[in-house]
Amino acid sequence: MHIYNAPLSDMRFLLTDVFDAPSFWQANDSLNHIDMDTVDIVLESLSKFTKNVLLPLNRSGDEEGVGFSHDEEGYGAVSTPTGFKQAYEQYKEGGWVGLGATPEYGGQGFPKMVSMFQEEMMFSTNQAFALYPNLALGAGLCLLKSASETQKDMYLEKIYAGEWAGTMCLTEAHAGTDLGLIKTKAVPNEDGSYNITGSKIFVTGGDHDLTENIIHLVLAKTPNAPAGSKGISLFIVPKYLIKEDSYGDHQIGTRNTASVGAVEHKMGVKGSATCVLNFDKAKGWMVGEEFTGLASMFLVMNYERLAIGMQGIAVTELAYQNAAAYANDRLQSRSDSGIKNPDKSADALIHHADIRRMLLNAKSHAEVSRCFAMYVAKQLDIAKYSDDKQLIATANARVALLTPITKAFLSDKGFEATVDCQQVFGGHGYICDAGMEQIVRDARIAQIYEGANGIQGLDLLGRKVAKDSGAMLFDFLTEIRRFIANMQADHGIKQATLKAADNLECLTKILLNNMSERKDDVNGCAVNYLHATGYLCFAYMYAMMVAASQHKEGVFYANKLKLADYFIDHILPRMQMHMELAQAGSQSMMAFDLAYFEPA
Amino acid sequence: MHIYNAPLSDMRFLLTDVFDAPSFWQANDSLNHIDMDTVDIVLESLSKFTKNVLLPLNRSGDEEGVGFSHDEEGYGAVSTPTGFKQAYEQYKEGGWVGLGATPEYGGQGFPKMVSMFQEEMMFSTNQAFALYPNLALGAGLCLLKSASETQKDMYLEKIYAGEWAGTMCLTEAHAGTDLGLIKTKAVPNEDGSYNITGSKIFVTGGDHDLTENIIHLVLAKTPNAPAGSKGISLFIVPKYLIKEDSYGDHQIGTRNTASVGAVEHKMGVKGSATCVLNFDKAKGWMVGEEFTGLASMFLVMNYERLAIGMQGIAVTELAYQNAAAYANDRLQSRSDSGIKNPDKSADALIHHADIRRMLLNAKSHAEVSRCFAMYVAKQLDIAKYSDDKQLIATANARVALLTPITKAFLSDKGFEATVDCQQVFGGHGYICDAGMEQIVRDARIAQIYEGANGIQGLDLLGRKVAKDSGAMLFDFLTEIRRFIANMQADHGIKQATLKAADNLECLTKILLNNMSERKDDVNGCAVNYLHATGYLCFAYMYAMMVAASQHKEGVFYANKLKLADYFIDHILPRMQMHMELAQAGSQSMMAFDLAYFEPA
Repeated sequence: MHIYNAPLSDMRFLLTDVFDAPSFWQANDSLNHIDMDTVDIVLESLSKFTKNVLLPLNRSGDEEGVGFSHDEEGYGAVSTPTGFKQAYEQYKEGGWVGLGATPEYGGQGFPKMVSMFQEEMMFSTNQAFALYPNLALGAGLCLLKSASETQKDMYLEKIYAGEWAGTMCLTEAHAGTDLGLIKTKAVPNEDGSYNITGSKIFVTGGDHDLTENIIHLVLAKTPNAPAGSKGISLFIVPKYLIKEDSYGDHQIGTRNTASVGAVEHKMGVKGSATCVLNFDKAKGWMVGEEFTGLASMFLVMNYERLAIGMQGIAVTELAYQNAAAYANDRLQSRSDSGIKNPDKSADALIHHADIRRMLLNAKSHAEVSRCFAMYVAKQLDIAKYSDDKQLIATANARVALLTPITKAFLSDKGFEATVDCQQVFGGHGYICDAGMEQIVRDARIAQIYEGANGIQGLDLLGRKVAKDSGAMLFDFLTEIRRFIANMQADHGIKQATLKAADNLECLTKILLNNMSERKDDVNGCAVNYLHATGYLCFAYMYAMMVAASQHKEGVFYANKLKLADYFIDHILPRMQMHMELAQAGSQSMMAFDLAYFEPA
Repeated sequence: MHIYNAPLSDMRFLLTDVFDAPSFWQANDSLNHIDMDTVDIVLESLSKFTKNVLLPLNRSGDEEGVGFSHDEEGYGAVSTPTGFKQAYEQYKEGGWVGLGATPEYGGQGFPKMVSMFQEEMMFSTNQAFALYPNLALGAGLCLLKSASETQKDMYLEKIYAGEWAGTMCLTEAHAGTDLGLIKTKAVPNEDGSYNITGSKIFVTGGDHDLTENIIHLVLAKTPNAPAGSKGISLFIVPKYLIKEDSYGDHQIGTRNTASVGAVEHKMGVKGSATCVLNFDKAKGWMVGEEFTGLASMFLVMNYERLAIGMQGIAVTELAYQNAAAYANDRLQSRSDSGIKNPDKSADALIHHADIRRMLLNAKSHAEVSRCFAMYVAKQLDIAKYSDDKQLIATANARVALLTPITKAFLSDKGFEATVDCQQVFGGHGYICDAGMEQIVRDARIAQIYEGANGIQGLDLLGRKVAKDSGAMLFDFLTEIRRFIANMQADHGIKQATLKAADNLECLTKILLNNMSERKDDVNGCAVNYLHATGYLCFAYMYAMMVAASQHKEGVFYANKLKLADYFIDHILPRMQMHMELAQAGSQSMMAFDLAYFEPA
């Protein structure tokens, strides 16, 4: 079985030393009941729950996968892997589902800077399991932001209590990235409801046996809706309709005509049900105004995409811990710098520099990404809780700019890290028993779903940078330079970060200039631009961590400084490569005729 | 089902335009019966066989995996996936097993420059299937190089005819990279045979139902053998003993006491049986002299590791073809540079530059790696068939230097390419139905087995470069510079290659200098040094392909030049990054105390 110990020290380091979350909480009326003592209890409880309850189901859930059958009425029905239901009961009973949800609807109101670690621990120990409540919370947040008061009253308490789950039904077979192409229809009834008809794919948690009801949020088109993404509306389509006379206590009634058509067989996260959902005149209720469906979905994207970034961190942490343990135990060959275990016939892997290279790549990724995720979470919290308009505006700008990086860069580097950690195991890494190959398979999805990483690149370069001629980015660079200028510490990260910021500014101006002429350059440069920006963000985060660690006693802080050294030597040089690749533009990509890519 | 069309045009381009293989064959007595007409027939037949017979079994073999049971006598018995046995019969009856084997023992004597494509097509269409005959040929080659005449007479014809298979039994549970730690014992009997006792793991094709016998080549230690790798000997341990009175017609007799203890469940290549093999006083016969076991194995490593490189090419080709087809078909979003399919609601993916970026990364890898593999295959052929001592010495030096790059760089880039091609499919790429996730899982093994890629780095930098102070590398650089100097063509690849060669020379001298002081630097720099060297090799190969394409008519050649442009813009810049990472050395890796890596 995997080993896992939640990195509580690192979490505390970020909350206190780096971001001084308690001061922020103290200064804020909605948060001043929260302090580090409370947070410690929460994190430690979650650490035990995830380790003791979710982790033991991680591999068995992968091996067993989800079951699919038809119930007596002919509806498709998904059963989760053995143990998931009991674990979910425990999770629900513990009140964990609504940890970060608003108290107005029964949530515990913890800020994102705390609930992000709930996500991390859950995704580390059982990504497939964690997706069920994660999607429910996404649906909840979407309702909170866009639904009517009546709708919120009807659904949110149940969702935040974990009694009902939720889904996001966006993709159709022919419409993924391009949601404007969806065909699902919503025909109005006289009572104000709609009949929803169509077929959705890739619905995470589209059905399961964990909750008595599932609230599907479905993108569909009303009659005479304009073509493309401007004609999309959003609908609530519960698996079971709510009894009309029971709105107060939310009893479920008739089965709605939404049914699972199939469950996908996937590379990983096999314990998570990825469903084809067929809607056959299913009863639905519009959320918000007509044609605002995409906008409503996008209101929750920042949170959802941070969650995907957390998956990248989570799999990295799990993979690292297991690979480091293996490297400590496994004896193989002698160290190049002299025998380390003279009593044994070989030295432990950890004495070989190449093994350390792979482990430190992962370790660095886990820690710097965690710091970056908290930076973004803090902006989300400021935007949500602050009453300072200027602070809110800046926070929103940072979130807009950094969300695609959070999603794509953290998941890309997370996949890379799990592959590195698998490699530490040699041949054993390829064998299912060791558990590493599952981590790699599970990690892979984060690069794909919730907007494939190429799309995140386009979002960053096309929408967030190009649209305002880089203003939002340049403002962020100013923040970075100001931080470095104010740093007391003397460490190579200062110079490295400044240089990275200058380089990115220069690259951005070149790209902005080129794009006006070469229309395909946004698309051709986007992914490498995102990676270059990601490494700058990482440098900034290391600068923050160095600033918080220097002149402090103890091996924990000393190691933070060493990891920053490693980052400068062995990670940051990648930024230059991505800059060059971005700068090369799209010309040599577009030089080929279409026929070149056609099958022979 | 996967689509696949063997890249015959590219294979012919390499054989004729780039390497002028026919001239080499003509000039050589052992090869002058081979011409391009014959080779065309061979390649086309193989292309049909692999496409029509092996490809349809690729996914079903992955889904079904191998069966494991116990026979009446209690021996573990592996059954291959449905259809493998019939396919193997066809393959064997076609005389394909011994295509590249020596005619002295019934082989068809085709040079490596041709049989490498047999490997490619088979690995593309069914990597799991291909491993069975591939391992048999490895065992055959090992016997050819090191066994006695009697042993060769007894086994080689059967192996090359495909009647008997073969395995390599090296790894033990505690001894992978470090084979000096093996514990399997070989105790001499009075009749000259040995009793082999021990347990081997990761034995590819350790048992199966494709052939009537399997010839295991087993590393073991004789009594009183010196400790470590110097005490290892090699033994022939047939699954069924050969009837003593039937040496002429090789009838199999008594079952030997070697039995499969378990079959591993793996991330991929699930149709290939990876076995635990238990030897319980199994009868074995020593190959070559006592204590030369590792040396005998290493004699075939160059061929085996080229085969792994071919796997990297093969999975890339398969992934590319499927991703390109998808990108042509799938309509999603509009092109940034204007609507391309006004009659449709969206443009095909292939119009988006980011999709081309991923496809061209794969396409470039497939073509330049194929060229590089042929460069190495040509050196192997020169070393084997030439009678010019100077040419042979140079060829052997090139093979020694480039084998670790062939194995590791081609498999690393192959995995990367399959991941890119999976990404082209978006969410569909994660679903088993699309077949892309299998390619990724299958591709991953090549980075691990046959000497994990980290070990290849050590082989290159530690053994091949450092040991002779870089002489072998510098001689290769001289060849590259001479080639560029003689190039008639006018293309950016000339300058790019020269610069890459200069940079690598400079890096090599720095590393050689550092290593004497910093012992861990070999280990800490090896992988990045290997990648830097790999990109130089790729630049050289592109120079060769450009030289062979310029001033020629036709779109095929024009596209080769365009792909070289793409390489310069979007691939070669990676070399600089790996140089910087290599140059950073091992200091910041080794700065951490051991405790840092211990579980919390």
